[in-house]
Amino acid sequence: MIGNPQADVLLDFDRGRRTGLDEAVFAQGKTSTQLEVIFSAALQRSASLLITRLSAEKFQKLAERWSAHLEYCEVSRTAFFDRRPQVFGHAPRVAIVAAGTSDVGVAREAERTLAYSGEASASFFDVGVAGLWRLLGRIDAISRFQVVIAVAGMDAALPTVLGGLIPGLIIAVPTSVGYGVATGGGTALNAILASCASGITAVNIDNGYGAACAALRALRIAAPVAADTGAAGTGLLSQSF
Amino acid sequence: MIGNPQADVLLDFDRGRRTGLDEAVFAQGKTSTQLEVIFSAALQRSASLLITRLSAEKFQKLAERWSAHLEYCEVSRTAFFDRRPQVFGHAPRVAIVAAGTSDVGVAREAERTLAYSGEASASFFDVGVAGLWRLLGRIDAISRFQVVIAVAGMDAALPTVLGGLIPGLIIAVPTSVGYGVATGGGTALNAILASCASGITAVNIDNGYGAACAALRALRIAAPVAADTGAAGTGLLSQSF
Amino acid sequence: MIGNPQADVLLDFDRGRRTGLDEAVFAQGKTSTQLEVIFSAALQRSASLLITRLSAEKFQKLAERWSAHLEYCEVSRTAFFDRRPQVFGHAPRVAIVAAGTSDVGVAREAERTLAYSGEASASFFDVGVAGLWRLLGRIDAISRFQVVIAVAGMDAALPTVLGGLIPGLIIAVPTSVGYGVATGGGTALNAILASCASGITAVNIDNGYGAACAALRALRIAAPVAADTGAAGTGLLSQSF
Amino acid sequence: MIGNPQADVLLDFDRGRRTGLDEAVFAQGKTSTQLEVIFSAALQRSASLLITRLSAEKFQKLAERWSAHLEYCEVSRTAFFDRRPQVFGHAPRVAIVAAGTSDVGVAREAERTLAYSGEASASFFDVGVAGLWRLLGRIDAISRFQVVIAVAGMDAALPTVLGGLIPGLIIAVPTSVGYGVATGGGTALNAILASCASGITAVNIDNGYGAACAALRALRIAAPVAADTGAAGTGLLSQSF
Amino acid sequence: MIGNPQADVLLDFDRGRRTGLDEAVFAQGKTSTQLEVIFSAALQRSASLLITRLSAEKFQKLAERWSAHLEYCEVSRTAFFDRRPQVFGHAPRVAIVAAGTSDVGVAREAERTLAYSGEASASFFDVGVAGLWRLLGRIDAISRFQVVIAVAGMDAALPTVLGGLIPGLIIAVPTSVGYGVATGGGTALNAILASCASGITAVNIDNGYGAACAALRALRIAAPVAADTGAAGTGLLSQSF
Amino acid sequence: MIGNPQADVLLDFDRGRRTGLDEAVFAQGKTSTQLEVIFSAALQRSASLLITRLSAEKFQKLAERWSAHLEYCEVSRTAFFDRRPQVFGHAPRVAIVAAGTSDVGVAREAERTLAYSGEASASFFDVGVAGLWRLLGRIDAISRFQVVIAVAGMDAALPTVLGGLIPGLIIAVPTSVGYGVATGGGTALNAILASCASGITAVNIDNGYGAACAALRALRIAAPVAADTGAAGTGLLSQSF
Amino acid sequence: MIGNPQADVLLDFDRGRRTGLDEAVFAQGKTSTQLEVIFSAALQRSASLLITRLSAEKFQKLAERWSAHLEYCEVSRTAFFDRRPQVFGHAPRVAIVAAGTSDVGVAREAERTLAYSGEASASFFDVGVAGLWRLLGRIDAISRFQVVIAVAGMDAALPTVLGGLIPGLIIAVPTSVGYGVATGGGTALNAILASCASGITAVNIDNGYGAACAALRALRIAAPVAADTGAAGTGLLSQSF
Amino acid sequence: MIGNPQADVLLDFDRGRRTGLDEAVFAQGKTSTQLEVIFSAALQRSASLLITRLSAEKFQKLAERWSAHLEYCEVSRTAFFDRRPQVFGHAPRVAIVAAGTSDVGVAREAERTLAYSGEASASFFDVGVAGLWRLLGRIDAISRFQVVIAVAGMDAALPTVLGGLIPGLIIAVPTSVGYGVATGGGTALNAILASCASGITAVNIDNGYGAACAALRALRIAAPVAADTGAAGTGLLSQSF
Repeated sequence: MIGNPQADVLLDFDRGRRTGLDEAVFAQGKTSTQLEVIFSAALQRSASLLITRLSAEKFQKLAERWSAHLEYCEVSRTAFFDRRPQVFGHAPRVAIVAAGTSDVGVAREAERTLAYSGEASASFFDVGVAGLWRLLGRIDAISRFQVVIAVAGMDAALPTVLGGLIPGLIIAVPTSVGYGVATGGGTALNAILASCASGITAVNIDNGYGAACAALRALRIAAPVAADTGAAGTGLLSQSF
Repeated sequence: MIGNPQADVLLDFDRGRRTGLDEAVFAQGKTSTQLEVIFSAALQRSASLLITRLSAEKFQKLAERWSAHLEYCEVSRTAFFDRRPQVFGHAPRVAIVAAGTSDVGVAREAERTLAYSGEASASFFDVGVAGLWRLLGRIDAISRFQVVIAVAGMDAALPTVLGGLIPGLIIAVPTSVGYGVATGGGTALNAILASCASGITAVNIDNGYGAACAALRALRIAAPVAADTGAAGTGLLSQSF
Repeated sequence: MIGNPQADVLLDFDRGRRTGLDEAVFAQGKTSTQLEVIFSAALQRSASLLITRLSAEKFQKLAERWSAHLEYCEVSRTAFFDRRPQVFGHAPRVAIVAAGTSDVGVAREAERTLAYSGEASASFFDVGVAGLWRLLGRIDAISRFQVVIAVAGMDAALPTVLGGLIPGLIIAVPTSVGYGVATGGGTALNAILASCASGITAVNIDNGYGAACAALRALRIAAPVAADTGAAGTGLLSQSF
Repeated sequence: MIGNPQADVLLDFDRGRRTGLDEAVFAQGKTSTQLEVIFSAALQRSASLLITRLSAEKFQKLAERWSAHLEYCEVSRTAFFDRRPQVFGHAPRVAIVAAGTSDVGVAREAERTLAYSGEASASFFDVGVAGLWRLLGRIDAISRFQVVIAVAGMDAALPTVLGGLIPGLIIAVPTSVGYGVATGGGTALNAILASCASGITAVNIDNGYGAACAALRALRIAAPVAADTGAAGTGLLSQSF
Repeated sequence: MIGNPQADVLLDFDRGRRTGLDEAVFAQGKTSTQLEVIFSAALQRSASLLITRLSAEKFQKLAERWSAHLEYCEVSRTAFFDRRPQVFGHAPRVAIVAAGTSDVGVAREAERTLAYSGEASASFFDVGVAGLWRLLGRIDAISRFQVVIAVAGMDAALPTVLGGLIPGLIIAVPTSVGYGVATGGGTALNAILASCASGITAVNIDNGYGAACAALRALRIAAPVAADTGAAGTGLLSQSF
Repeated sequence: MIGNPQADVLLDFDRGRRTGLDEAVFAQGKTSTQLEVIFSAALQRSASLLITRLSAEKFQKLAERWSAHLEYCEVSRTAFFDRRPQVFGHAPRVAIVAAGTSDVGVAREAERTLAYSGEASASFFDVGVAGLWRLLGRIDAISRFQVVIAVAGMDAALPTVLGGLIPGLIIAVPTSVGYGVATGGGTALNAILASCASGITAVNIDNGYGAACAALRALRIAAPVAADTGAAGTGLLSQSF
Repeated sequence: MIGNPQADVLLDFDRGRRTGLDEAVFAQGKTSTQLEVIFSAALQRSASLLITRLSAEKFQKLAERWSAHLEYCEVSRTAFFDRRPQVFGHAPRVAIVAAGTSDVGVAREAERTLAYSGEASASFFDVGVAGLWRLLGRIDAISRFQVVIAVAGMDAALPTVLGGLIPGLIIAVPTSVGYGVATGGGTALNAILASCASGITAVNIDNGYGAACAALRALRIAAPVAADTGAAGTGLLSQSF
Repeated sequence: MIGNPQADVLLDFDRGRRTGLDEAVFAQGKTSTQLEVIFSAALQRSASLLITRLSAEKFQKLAERWSAHLEYCEVSRTAFFDRRPQVFGHAPRVAIVAAGTSDVGVAREAERTLAYSGEASASFFDVGVAGLWRLLGRIDAISRFQVVIAVAGMDAALPTVLGGLIPGLIIAVPTSVGYGVATGGGTALNAILASCASGITAVNIDNGYGAACAALRALRIAAPVAADTGAAGTGLLSQSF
């Protein structure tokens, strides 16, 4: 039948079984009804879910019966479905560095995605290079991390400066903060891609989730993926649009 | 008559007389014939000229009779017509800071434009922020200048870092150095305009000439324009397209 | 803890102490809660603040306890936190020239930023070049200023015409006024950067704050920065995103 | 047969007969062989042609047998095939105003297109608004024309200023003169379309031919089109791509 | 005082006196307060006004005291202030041709602007070329007009087809109707400028007002402007942003 | 009279009679009043209509008297006016393949347009290539269809992979799903057009209606159009903007 | 070894065997050496090839030993390797319609690609809609074809007009003919995608090859693909970049 | 002195000493003279260099005295200065996967950059997803690598498909291969950034060098950076523009 929400949302739990990757749900553009269909399907299979881009308004519209299943964070607009925040068994291996207060939401999305997958991270916020001393005062601490997620909008000069100072992998996330030529984040993205520092990588604008997934992929270099990739809690996420 | 070069090139020497501004000639897109018509007109009035965007090829094609009148610089693609490089009567008031070797041509265009107008400048080249220590090692010297022309391509992070470190006027010139998303210099320009450092100004891509003119305008704040604005050597240039 | 607003907003009062620059707060995209955290931090240190891009709606949502601390201007969408409008000790040194009624908000943002820093300015509004006589009738008054902030949207022909008529520093602010090809202000920005008048500088679209900061930088040419740059009231602002 | 040049070039002489419009040929992108096929076809029917965008290189490559048929102008890159420049029977009704020396080629293309159709024009070159007095000194003469073709590149402020000063129809031609944000002429085009002066019309970048055709259409208002629109010498051109 | 609406809105009634041009007011982006300041100023001088881009919402928010002065049209979002629709003393000289129902608002803006200036027009709506016979059935009637305003969105093929069929002046108005690549009207605008029909002119997207002003300029070719250009009803409008 | 809705909406029922094409109505941008004028006209002629882009809000605002005539589908935002969903007399000849849940609305618009014209289709949803096995598991079923409509947003890799696997006609519909560089669907569109698989065709972003119309055109290859093209239920639609 | 041409060019002859699709080679950007490696590999397997985008210069640089194997067409820049032009066993099923002389090269690429696959076509050139009667005079002949490839540059109004007049499948190819806003063909492409005629499909700019492949896919609707898809002469091409 | 090449090229050998990073030289845009100045400086300090974007033409113009120092690869346009290709002491840890023959140059640039730094890599070329079986036949081998550099132009669907099949870090390099909407590589870049596969990272268009640098950064996760980061052969490169 046309328009039956159940028919339109087909979660790939099979993929989860095959590859050990948990499902993540991109909530933007989905109706409350569609989300609740997804929750029901997950519940039925005792699956947990990461939900991204879930606005506070949409979260509040979800039927009350789901509230016990959801742990929600407004700043990052993410929710954990049937997974509690974890006690991490090791020191953080990922640093998340953000240039300004306005970049915090995206940085927190990366932090939450890592946490959902059992990976701790350390945050260094408000270290934009317009006030260079803030960054230089923390650069020794940052350079000890093997993976650094750098979140920056406007002219996104932070990743370039970082790139000349630290040896680790840098995954830069441009943000859509700004106005005029900075509207939408295209300038931040292009500045990162054109960086004169070598070996900076980029993900899509505002994609804190994707940066965390890339970090999870990279961390497997330290602990190579065994034949059984499906170990709970360390699996890579895959997003359902 | 249609197509008569004399009829098509009308230099505004009258404007020079009225406002004290020397004429500058944008050579790109002009034929050798058109340039020689301009030289003849200048010679007839004993006027001097600054020529910009004059490629080495075009310079060599000019008739030999003009060689004694022209002092040419290949790096900046500029020539002085009937004006010799000057002995400056005061210490440089303008710093020209360039991020990479590839930005030198544009930086030199600014330097030459200032020199043509009797204004000395100090150069700080190859101080891109991907190697931050190069800049930090010279920042005390740079911050003593009241006007800083900052030339940078690619992601143009240099003006932002400068903006957080020095108190003077910053005139940033994006350059078209680069490939991929940096092609043409649009990324550098937008990064400068979107700078999270406050009070950075910009001119068009590769416009070292314009940056120098803006610096000349600003320096009048120190020595306000008298009723007689036409004083030789300090006049502002105006460009003839 | 994730999402703690106190943790996400880290004002750089230390920078203020080091460089004498007061902090400015970009309110757009910040929640009322985040703004109030900033106010509390400022109050605790007896600091004053300039707030920009504060809409009337957001201003009215701020808790009443802050109203005594805020002097708000709806046209410019700016507020002074714990700083009263000042009696200026000298004649204005900056002219603010705006092309149309729709550009007034941006022009007022520049005016208020200058006033916050103790710098008076003179306004010349509604002098767009489509009615050239309005501008020509005031050009003598305008040309007496050493720094001119020119605010214009649409095709932004005003800065070009000004550039051929006045000798001072011109800082042009494109505005996002307009529709069709003028939407967003990109045409105005490009027209300014491509100006055939020499030595025009530009800041980002609608960035009246940035133009004022550039003017403050330039005015230091007249009164060079002493070792102690932190003199109250004349310090350069730096914006917190 | 594939690739037979005769088969690929089908001039619409029939249209000429039906509507009284002469054929114009856009030479850019056509080979010498294709052009010569067109010339042969025209010769066979005793037709005259206007050729546009014919570079000097391509003109010189044409077989010598055509030289007696062609009157060529290098500045405008146009040629008349079997039509001599005319003695005009009335005073010019169209003014062609160009901002800079670099705009002359496009202005001349308009002038030549008008001349081909038997319409005289008056030229006012090098009157860009960066030197406003040049324009103001001639504005009385320009404002006497009922149709004004305004040619300008870079920021194209000229049509806006004209629009506030003269009552006639203004057909603006943006040119591709310039570099950086002015590259290709898009900024000039957008500035014209966004003009805050009312009632400015635009044609494509560098399209002097099109502006002249629009002027010819407008002039029919004075001398309305009779049933027999095919009167020689005043017919509107139509271009063959 | 900063923010005084009276100070920010300076109507150029003097220009009206000098050039005989009535003032038009662009209401979009102006507050009700700003509009009422303008009305008061007009009332004081017994001036009439054309208001454009006045949404029904904003119109209804205006204080009731102005309702007797305003004649409002919701489709075109225009209002006449103290000027009644006129009885035209001659047959229409302008045809307004629109491609689709969605283009009607813009077409009506042109119609109303002409009417305000005392110029009648004839409308031909819903004649888009996807249903070619609708246009061909009316082409004889349309081709009798000396000036044709062609309004079209999406791919805007209408002006090109018209250009090959009628001899008069064509002023094309692209509209922002559409989605995907047609969003905002840029495709329609570019298609018009790139038209392979000769001599089509364009104005900005959705600018029905501007097209009417261009038509008024062109119609002066038939009835040249006398020394006294201020004759009521035939004056050209100038828009106040 | 200006602004009379009846005058502004001119349905081309004559075209329907001439070419056998039913009329489709693009509801976006039309007011409820305009839609009801269209319904009245259709009712008067006993015509049926397909309405596209009809939001739930606008549907609910329609006067109750029309509810019995309209069969509405919220997911596809389409309505059938006086035409009931059909019992199809043959097996589906078109496959509709969609990459993600967010693409379902557009896919359903295609499905409904086909159904309105009497053509059944088979749906294959949520088979995006990021989880390749979902697609490979169904590729045999899909490759049996002669026409495949492929709906995909973001990077739109689905049509390329399909193109290398199936022999039939592929009509790809990019969708505007996504954020950052995927905003608006331009990236999806360009990826489809640049596909390294051969012979993929594209329609406008989100244009499920257009893809269905193209499929209807293609299916005529199997059952060539007879002289009488107007057979009810199988006619091609034409859209009224 | 790095840089060994043999290692870098891996033709997918296996794919040919599996799917019955012949290989096509995109010559642009390949060196003569790379092309000759491909020819050798084809010769060794007795395979035939279609080569596209092969400039006359590059063709002439190929070693003489290949000349007997290549049948070259300069207009379309294509060559057949070891396949002779065919005698077609049935009447043409595809019409190729081109708007202007400058579009002929792209049209011929489509024609040659069809011919290589054993499919005849009929050409209708120089029928751009600026001269509508040329098209209307041939529309009856064109509308008899089930598949029409429409090639048009500039504003590409031809496919829209065709779409309203003929019932068959329309595959439109935008071309990069033109200057100013038409540069590169983006305007033509967007105009086609935004067409107000229903059911027009598009391929990439200048992609005559792709349009022919799409036509071949569509023609299978008439003669459905059997289990053995590899029948010589009707196979679909796949391009090797 | 102005224009002295020695003064304009300032290699950062000190940075090399401080951070253990060798210098890389971006040859595009540098003259032969500038390159030879760099070689002399390197020779004087017994330093080795990687040169990128060195065309065959420029390479051949270098003075013969440098030929013994340079090991050049034309396909990748790279040269090693005073460093011989290495015997790698361990199995490759990086896979380089390229979609088409035209992407090989960029892939080889990555391979050579890795080799210069002592890191072996394995190549998988011509595995574009339009012929999916080529990729699927090698996916087991590819998925054993912890770092995969994926090089693809046109629609760049390869990284998305890879992202759903392999667990390791994916660094995607868009290439500028292609025409029409694929011109310049922007479509490939955007498709990669918008990938619906999770955790794909991107570098600038054609930036094989940058992808290799990112891979070197990531490989440090396996072998963490010791206090002495300057170990020969594993140092990260930094590029000199």
